[in-house]
Amino acid sequence: MENNQQILLASRPSGMPTKENFAFKEAPIPEIGVGEVLIRTLYLSVDPYMRGRMSDRKSYVPPFPLNEIIVGGIVGEIIESRADDLSKGDVVIGNLGWQLYNVANTAEVRKIDPTIAPISTYLGVLGMPGLTAYFGLLDIGQPKEGETVVISGAAGAVGMIVGQIAKIKGAHVVGIAGSDEKIDYITQELGFDVAINYKTTDNIRQALKEACPNGVDVYFDNVGGEISDAVLSLLNHGARIPLCGQISLYNLEKPDVGPRIQSQLLINSALMKGFIVSDYAKQFKEGAFQLAQWVQEGKIKYKENIVEGFENTIDAFLGLFKGENIGKQIVKVAERSQQSD
Amino acid sequence: MENNQQILLASRPSGMPTKENFAFKEAPIPEIGVGEVLIRTLYLSVDPYMRGRMSDRKSYVPPFPLNEIIVGGIVGEIIESRADDLSKGDVVIGNLGWQLYNVANTAEVRKIDPTIAPISTYLGVLGMPGLTAYFGLLDIGQPKEGETVVISGAAGAVGMIVGQIAKIKGAHVVGIAGSDEKIDYITQELGFDVAINYKTTDNIRQALKEACPNGVDVYFDNVGGEISDAVLSLLNHGARIPLCGQISLYNLEKPDVGPRIQSQLLINSALMKGFIVSDYAKQFKEGAFQLAQWVQEGKIKYKENIVEGFENTIDAFLGLFKGENIGKQIVKVAERSQQSD
Repeated sequence: MENNQQILLASRPSGMPTKENFAFKEAPIPEIGVGEVLIRTLYLSVDPYMRGRMSDRKSYVPPFPLNEIIVGGIVGEIIESRADDLSKGDVVIGNLGWQLYNVANTAEVRKIDPTIAPISTYLGVLGMPGLTAYFGLLDIGQPKEGETVVISGAAGAVGMIVGQIAKIKGAHVVGIAGSDEKIDYITQELGFDVAINYKTTDNIRQALKEACPNGVDVYFDNVGGEISDAVLSLLNHGARIPLCGQISLYNLEKPDVGPRIQSQLLINSALMKGFIVSDYAKQFKEGAFQLAQWVQEGKIKYKENIVEGFENTIDAFLGLFKGENIGKQIVKVAERSQQSD
Repeated sequence: MENNQQILLASRPSGMPTKENFAFKEAPIPEIGVGEVLIRTLYLSVDPYMRGRMSDRKSYVPPFPLNEIIVGGIVGEIIESRADDLSKGDVVIGNLGWQLYNVANTAEVRKIDPTIAPISTYLGVLGMPGLTAYFGLLDIGQPKEGETVVISGAAGAVGMIVGQIAKIKGAHVVGIAGSDEKIDYITQELGFDVAINYKTTDNIRQALKEACPNGVDVYFDNVGGEISDAVLSLLNHGARIPLCGQISLYNLEKPDVGPRIQSQLLINSALMKGFIVSDYAKQFKEGAFQLAQWVQEGKIKYKENIVEGFENTIDAFLGLFKGENIGKQIVKVAERSQQSD
């Protein structure tokens, strides 16, 4: 068995993170105690929200400590078990360290069924991004048939699921994304009604106006900044705005300044609500069940952008902020063992 | 009988309104038709939201047309009736013209009972401002016992009722207002726990921190701008922000620019919702009943700032933006007739 390899946060990024903010470290493979399992990492998730944890200001969740292993979504297989409920060969998901081998107890991981869907999807459509889309759109956005739903970051892991759920609910769905490839994908493959490439549009406000002739009823916001300013100018009375992310701002060095939005919310009796998927932890089972059903019925398609190799984790993470990926960005660390005893 | 006198919108204000934006006009007293009543104005309401209607940009309600009579809340008595349900001597409330005499049909006015409370209160605590406070706080803010509720514009017609309802619900109530007289009034007379004079406080953020040692759960916002920026920096997870008004911005000539607030809402899973009292029209009866009960029980006190004389209406309106008034600003236009046949 090889040694363990780990990725630590070496320094806090100022603005856009760089490779220098991270460090690789070699370590022995840990021993497990009673009630614990040893997990070999198969897939590792890189997500935009993790940028927030790299700063030491308040965010959804506490900051990552410096010089410690970064923690995120991991799918792995158990290679050694001293826990009653988990056996060698089981595939589990959990919030674990960016390393080749993790030790966990049974409360820290959840067993997943590899026969339902590819195990990587538990980091995407059937996991955190899927549930984020599901609860943010349905609980806060509450789209009704015939309403207009606008989604920023529409070709990202969350956005593409939001749009497909909105279509299931009978909405007119408009996506905003940053490349023609993304635009083509979400309209031609995923069934979005209209998509706008904000990078090549001269006038995003005008483009949105044309795409939303009846105004905007729901704005699912992943990006913030000027794109959001433009969407907010088109709100209908009683509009709902789930705030899922503000990726355009995560790497700003100065505070984000722009037109204050309260007047727009006020004159339209509009609702804006921030959320994090863990707000809905009690309903995860219901959400995951519904998502799996829609995937099986072909009503929701998913796309993963899988980078091979633990050593490419940092690049995969940095790529999130370059607008390069379509769909869920995942790092494949190892192949699942063939034996399943 | 004297002639009718009317106040017209002569020009649209740019920035702070001035007397020159208004014109007085004399006109004959109108004739009424079948189904109509002639109403003599007794009290007239001046309200901050009316500023929005004087501009021609989109607001809650359509703009006032130029060179036409301004429309607002009026309490008056019927001096002539050709309607079945209303008689001479009845006191009614409605959205009517700023003039000594209005013609209305029965759908446009609502009869009020002068024996329950002084008739002017139907423009204040038992009327639009009271209902605004009631629904904004209870439906959107949903304060729970022991939570912290912060109110800007706390000594205004709406703010002072919000604070008292929040106290009834068992909250820790912090008011922000612009004079020591206001501060003393809302703490000593109305029972707010803490009040901050934003005009004499060096550091509003620090003052709020001290006033809200457990953070902010509900922020009832009447003013917007930098005061709101400071409050939003103290939100707790799951905070609720009813947006009632943005009086600090109504007279700005340039767009209001400041730190974008989405990040604050996002990291705190906070909800912000604009509203206008008419969103709750179906529940007015319930709200008015509860407010009247609280007033009768002495749990809600009210304060009116009554200016005498129709000719002082413009001054009373302009005074709203100078921060001079405590409580509901009302113009008394005429005494009610003694005969009540």
